[in-house]
Amino acid sequence: MDHRQLHESLPAIVDTLVKSVMGEPRMQHLNRVDLPNRDVVIEIIKKLRQLVYPGYFGKQGLTSENVTYRIGELVMELAELLYDQIRCCMRYGEQIPEGNGHSEICEECNRAAAKITHAFFERMPAVRELLAGDVQAAFDSDPAAKGTDETIFCYPGLFAGFVQRFAHVLHEMNVPLLPRIMTEYAHSLTGIDIHPGARLGQRLFVDHGTGVVIGETTVIGNNVKIYQGVTLGAVAPEFGQLLRGQKRHPTIEDDVVLYAGATILGGETVIGKASVIGGNVFLTASVPAGTRVTNEPSKLRYKQRKGRGRATESLIDFEI
Amino acid sequence: MDHRQLHESLPAIVDTLVKSVMGEPRMQHLNRVDLPNRDVVIEIIKKLRQLVYPGYFGKQGLTSENVTYRIGELVMELAELLYDQIRCCMRYGEQIPEGNGHSEICEECNRAAAKITHAFFERMPAVRELLAGDVQAAFDSDPAAKGTDETIFCYPGLFAGFVQRFAHVLHEMNVPLLPRIMTEYAHSLTGIDIHPGARLGQRLFVDHGTGVVIGETTVIGNNVKIYQGVTLGAVAPEFGQLLRGQKRHPTIEDDVVLYAGATILGGETVIGKASVIGGNVFLTASVPAGTRVTNEPSKLRYKQRKGRGRATESLIDFEI
Amino acid sequence: MDHRQLHESLPAIVDTLVKSVMGEPRMQHLNRVDLPNRDVVIEIIKKLRQLVYPGYFGKQGLTSENVTYRIGELVMELAELLYDQIRCCMRYGEQIPEGNGHSEICEECNRAAAKITHAFFERMPAVRELLAGDVQAAFDSDPAAKGTDETIFCYPGLFAGFVQRFAHVLHEMNVPLLPRIMTEYAHSLTGIDIHPGARLGQRLFVDHGTGVVIGETTVIGNNVKIYQGVTLGAVAPEFGQLLRGQKRHPTIEDDVVLYAGATILGGETVIGKASVIGGNVFLTASVPAGTRVTNEPSKLRYKQRKGRGRATESLIDFEI
Repeated sequence: MDHRQLHESLPAIVDTLVKSVMGEPRMQHLNRVDLPNRDVVIEIIKKLRQLVYPGYFGKQGLTSENVTYRIGELVMELAELLYDQIRCCMRYGEQIPEGNGHSEICEECNRAAAKITHAFFERMPAVRELLAGDVQAAFDSDPAAKGTDETIFCYPGLFAGFVQRFAHVLHEMNVPLLPRIMTEYAHSLTGIDIHPGARLGQRLFVDHGTGVVIGETTVIGNNVKIYQGVTLGAVAPEFGQLLRGQKRHPTIEDDVVLYAGATILGGETVIGKASVIGGNVFLTASVPAGTRVTNEPSKLRYKQRKGRGRATESLIDFEI
Repeated sequence: MDHRQLHESLPAIVDTLVKSVMGEPRMQHLNRVDLPNRDVVIEIIKKLRQLVYPGYFGKQGLTSENVTYRIGELVMELAELLYDQIRCCMRYGEQIPEGNGHSEICEECNRAAAKITHAFFERMPAVRELLAGDVQAAFDSDPAAKGTDETIFCYPGLFAGFVQRFAHVLHEMNVPLLPRIMTEYAHSLTGIDIHPGARLGQRLFVDHGTGVVIGETTVIGNNVKIYQGVTLGAVAPEFGQLLRGQKRHPTIEDDVVLYAGATILGGETVIGKASVIGGNVFLTASVPAGTRVTNEPSKLRYKQRKGRGRATESLIDFEI
Repeated sequence: MDHRQLHESLPAIVDTLVKSVMGEPRMQHLNRVDLPNRDVVIEIIKKLRQLVYPGYFGKQGLTSENVTYRIGELVMELAELLYDQIRCCMRYGEQIPEGNGHSEICEECNRAAAKITHAFFERMPAVRELLAGDVQAAFDSDPAAKGTDETIFCYPGLFAGFVQRFAHVLHEMNVPLLPRIMTEYAHSLTGIDIHPGARLGQRLFVDHGTGVVIGETTVIGNNVKIYQGVTLGAVAPEFGQLLRGQKRHPTIEDDVVLYAGATILGGETVIGKASVIGGNVFLTASVPAGTRVTNEPSKLRYKQRKGRGRATESLIDFEI
């Protein structure tokens, strides 16, 4: 086959693919209401970050005098983008199409979107206060941090927390799809997967963060520190029953530290106040306040290599 | 040194760097055949996703009437991009340069590229069927999923599987470089590293996924669930010998569940049908069908903090 | 609330947000010196990669004849971008604002930036030699690699190492912020988090890499191999004291292999030459040269499923 023949074969391929598309409803989104636009959602997150941390991201040279204009500009832009995506998500939730040939207009969805957008902005100062606490916690907890500016600028845990805290606001107002698109964007950039449903306390610090998973019904108190690879997950359901809607993920009380790789599972598991859970500890039961849990140090096997190469090498056990 | 002096110093720096480049053949690609273009490969993946899930990604408002035009448009565009990158990779594989001063034209590479592009499209309906199964498996397996739309839109495991299944088609047709560029793009976005050579069964579900590594010669059956941090890897070679081309990674039979952090190593390791491998289990040997493997719960050490501060704090052991 | 009312509510929201911004100094960057621009830093990394690996990234069709022009072009462009970002970071370090209303010009910062930019280019051939060693190590160590070209093109460990080695040069010259922005960009793309302060030896190989964390004061010798999920970290400080500036992370001597998930903690921990640390081993103490450390294989519990469904299923213990 050459290039010309390839081109001649394409109409037949199109026919086959159209049949494939029409035959599998789970893999196409035809004759249905519009979906939110992931690229616009990312744009929203970027503008939101400029609004929340003015002078750090986006335009430079902000002063006490000009910051009002900058905030005004960002609020106007964000309001439009958010309103549009939220009403799209509300229509999606109600399965009400719009436009070309679909003359119904979901007035109720539009009003809901206006109300949610407004409420979202109203919550913003409170979320900014939470984020200021996170910034301080990051600086206070990491000896490698040179200042709070560096943590805002560079720390993936702060970015994931920023996105999740705003996604959680939309999740609480029952906006479909949008919250999860937001947190999966943060997951993609940071390796930190916090479900929008999780309830996070004040001054949360997530260090490094790659591999962290925090499930939908997790509740986390204040001043909690979480290191890379920590899972706050669900116990495997026995016999395959699903637990949609139930509390399936643990509760972490105030002042708890969860070291790297700790796995804590189960909706009734409570890690009591000021407890410290050591690296790689696997817990499916509650512990009372003030507990330090570590793994019994696993017995290590030490062998010493003697000689070199396949023929002469041998390994001698020894103790340390 | 000031800015002007910096500029005056640059020609000498260029000379030094040219010497550095000419002196280290592993770090330059001069006088050789073109390499594929990673940006175009990413464009291919994006268009492929629009073609595979019409209406979910890319243009909105698709209907049963206009979808044929949309699919036709995407097939034409994709065919050109794929043909170009594949013939570039085939020339690379044969080390046959083209263009400016290299008048040989690799007609055989062009014909191979046309044939492979055509075969790739022919395999597409079958791959779409596999992906529809993956979508269903994600929804069925995750209590946090609100619907199949959400899984298509947001779930990193579905994205990594989508990319790998198409990369695998090209890998099987012995296209150099391109398959690995594709899967590494997915790895970068999802933290899920599935080698294009791995053979994946139907209805695969990879949840959260960060840290998952699935090696080149892995074979996975149907209805398998894999959680974050699972490694399907090779046993460390003794005495440094390499095993290029041999089966080095495990076989996972149908209906197996691999919980977070499970590590299964070795080309002769077979996890029998419907087995369940618990979190953090480390296995280098086969298990028969229907086995549940868990770690003996590690002995945990519980200590209770009394008092506060360096002077007065003490830790008391206790049992739970 | 409808769309019009939403718009009418925005001025009040702007007022509230301005108050929120003025009231929380940790969350705004007003009336202060400019910060570096993350987008420009990413541009620098991309051009640097084209300069370091000519012909692999960026313009194709390079030959022994035209490569000098290409390198010249890239050096000129990079010099300007680097000079600008570095003098921005130096002014930031000295807290000296510039421009609009701030007439002081930090001549010393400009001279420091010129000097550092020049020194950065002078170090480049030496860093390229280190990277050539990394490329060779990746090919030699991974049986799935088809050639060194593929490793340069696709391997995340090589990308993270490339970024860190250059960030480390700037870190050693005490440039604020910039080094960490660079390594966090690599972290975001690869899941590999290597602090710019870490000292890496020759021929480092990081395979897969997702979840790898290498702390600020780590020292790594030559010919070291590191697999996914390895942490080279700090011991948790007792009683909350911070250890800013002290050596908190381990020393890994030449020829050491660290398998997936190994965790090695503490500034006085030394892994002796040619040691091999097994998967998931957790070490906070030194081991002498030539040691192989593995976990005592954890006792696994095997259960065999009999029957099907909640009523009839039972699990029988057995041994393997």
